[in-house]
Amino acid sequence: MSFAVSGVFAAAATPYNTDLSPDHGLLVEHCLGLLADGCHGIALLGTTGEANSLSVGERMGLLEAVLKGGIAPEQLMPGTGVAAIPETVALTRHALDHGVVHVVMLPPFYYKGVSDEGLYAAYARIIEGVGDDRQRIVLYHIPQMSGMPLSQALVSRLHAAFPGIVVGIKDSSGDFANTEAYAISNPGFAVFAGPDPLLLPMLKSGGAGCITANANLVSASLRTIYDGAGDPARASEVEAAQARIVAYRSLAMSYAQIPAVKAMLALKSGNSGWSRVRPPLLPLTTTQQVELKEKLGGIA
Amino acid sequence: MSFAVSGVFAAAATPYNTDLSPDHGLLVEHCLGLLADGCHGIALLGTTGEANSLSVGERMGLLEAVLKGGIAPEQLMPGTGVAAIPETVALTRHALDHGVVHVVMLPPFYYKGVSDEGLYAAYARIIEGVGDDRQRIVLYHIPQMSGMPLSQALVSRLHAAFPGIVVGIKDSSGDFANTEAYAISNPGFAVFAGPDPLLLPMLKSGGAGCITANANLVSASLRTIYDGAGDPARASEVEAAQARIVAYRSLAMSYAQIPAVKAMLALKSGNSGWSRVRPPLLPLTTTQQVELKEKLGGIA
Repeated sequence: MSFAVSGVFAAAATPYNTDLSPDHGLLVEHCLGLLADGCHGIALLGTTGEANSLSVGERMGLLEAVLKGGIAPEQLMPGTGVAAIPETVALTRHALDHGVVHVVMLPPFYYKGVSDEGLYAAYARIIEGVGDDRQRIVLYHIPQMSGMPLSQALVSRLHAAFPGIVVGIKDSSGDFANTEAYAISNPGFAVFAGPDPLLLPMLKSGGAGCITANANLVSASLRTIYDGAGDPARASEVEAAQARIVAYRSLAMSYAQIPAVKAMLALKSGNSGWSRVRPPLLPLTTTQQVELKEKLGGIA
Repeated sequence: MSFAVSGVFAAAATPYNTDLSPDHGLLVEHCLGLLADGCHGIALLGTTGEANSLSVGERMGLLEAVLKGGIAPEQLMPGTGVAAIPETVALTRHALDHGVVHVVMLPPFYYKGVSDEGLYAAYARIIEGVGDDRQRIVLYHIPQMSGMPLSQALVSRLHAAFPGIVVGIKDSSGDFANTEAYAISNPGFAVFAGPDPLLLPMLKSGGAGCITANANLVSASLRTIYDGAGDPARASEVEAAQARIVAYRSLAMSYAQIPAVKAMLALKSGNSGWSRVRPPLLPLTTTQQVELKEKLGGIA
């Protein structure tokens, strides 16, 4: 299957300085490390990256810093969907102005209970507002955060109405049947699993890859799965990688996921600054960090 | 009971030009009319005002236009809470820079399942970031949109920790027991009902007033209730006003509320431009508008 975009993408966490401003230097270093570890690309400024806690200006600054730091535009897939359409348009245009064509796009997510017709109108208005044939949009289904599910009918309609522009979807719902259905209904549409344990089954069901939080920690294992999924000779290697990512995910999910991923980054890097998060998220407590360290030792 | 802020506030709807840019002139005219009809103030840029569909720049432009149009800073209570704290700080500071001290503030609403401790940290960071003793914050509990309920414990804690700054709350949940509990637990705390039928019972339970969508249409009736609630001599007048606002609310809620309120404004003003909304909201269909007009005739 050929997709407009595919592979293992890390939903990169955003490191902060002591004043909670983004630490651009450390982020660049982290992104380069993720690519070296096997990620095909970086899904910057996603849910895990706490993008929704950053201002529009901070988001633009982060993207520019990463480009300046040597990450190629082709390796980036930033999140640009916010509640207000004019800002989604501005962020997407800004990415395009810097040669970054692939974006992950939340629907406008404040007003709840809106119809498929309303969400269709929203995406159509964004695409028209961006007004650039280069734009490549990966839709973003994460109802547990956005409160705004993207129905199968809506996704198929957007894919059909904007061929070559609405090229894929990231499904973070964890509902495998739903993720699989996006792929089955829309051949060539790039469906990305959000939870890393679903990368393997999705590759077997016509998925394009994954965009995950734990890729911050286990990108090499995800790459092993991506490369080896169809190869009987690599079955045991893939199985071991799958066991590892399942263990990491279980550990992260036994706490608040984003603070837990950042706490593990702090432990792995020896840089305690990684554990900082912006409110309303809170870092793990000292007790939780000690416990996490012990459990992590049992996996890695 | 004496409150830092009280009265009938209209959650003013935002009129749009044909390109869906805000129509500043029509908004100013509308706000002046609401004040003339009896509103104590205008809760600009709330949920009904589709603030969450406007960019930070558009929000600031709207507030400035209304001030320039002759609405006094003391009559305004704009919404300034968005998902990203730096932008909430910027919007609140912008209001203060223009002499507008009262704001209605959503919690950061993207990341769900956060703790009271996390929400406390968020509000504390905003207040510190604004860094101005003049700021007067009315918290905003609207879980059906924000997905972010403000618990009784959190609200009491914020009120106690920031006396004279966290001065009230707007409760749009429609859960009267919850609204009443905010008032009972926090004497002197300005509790505003979101659904207009709850203004009357809340005034009897120590409420400070209301901030409602239907005030766009029935502000005179709401003012009658506010002024006459405690006066036995005005009981029948208050009863009639209550029946009228209940009828208007039922009508609005039988459609999507914001498009319905705007459609009714279009009907009442004869300006069909009022019916425009930004996606993901959609205007009422022509059939719905015809039906609404007929039903409205039966009330007004």
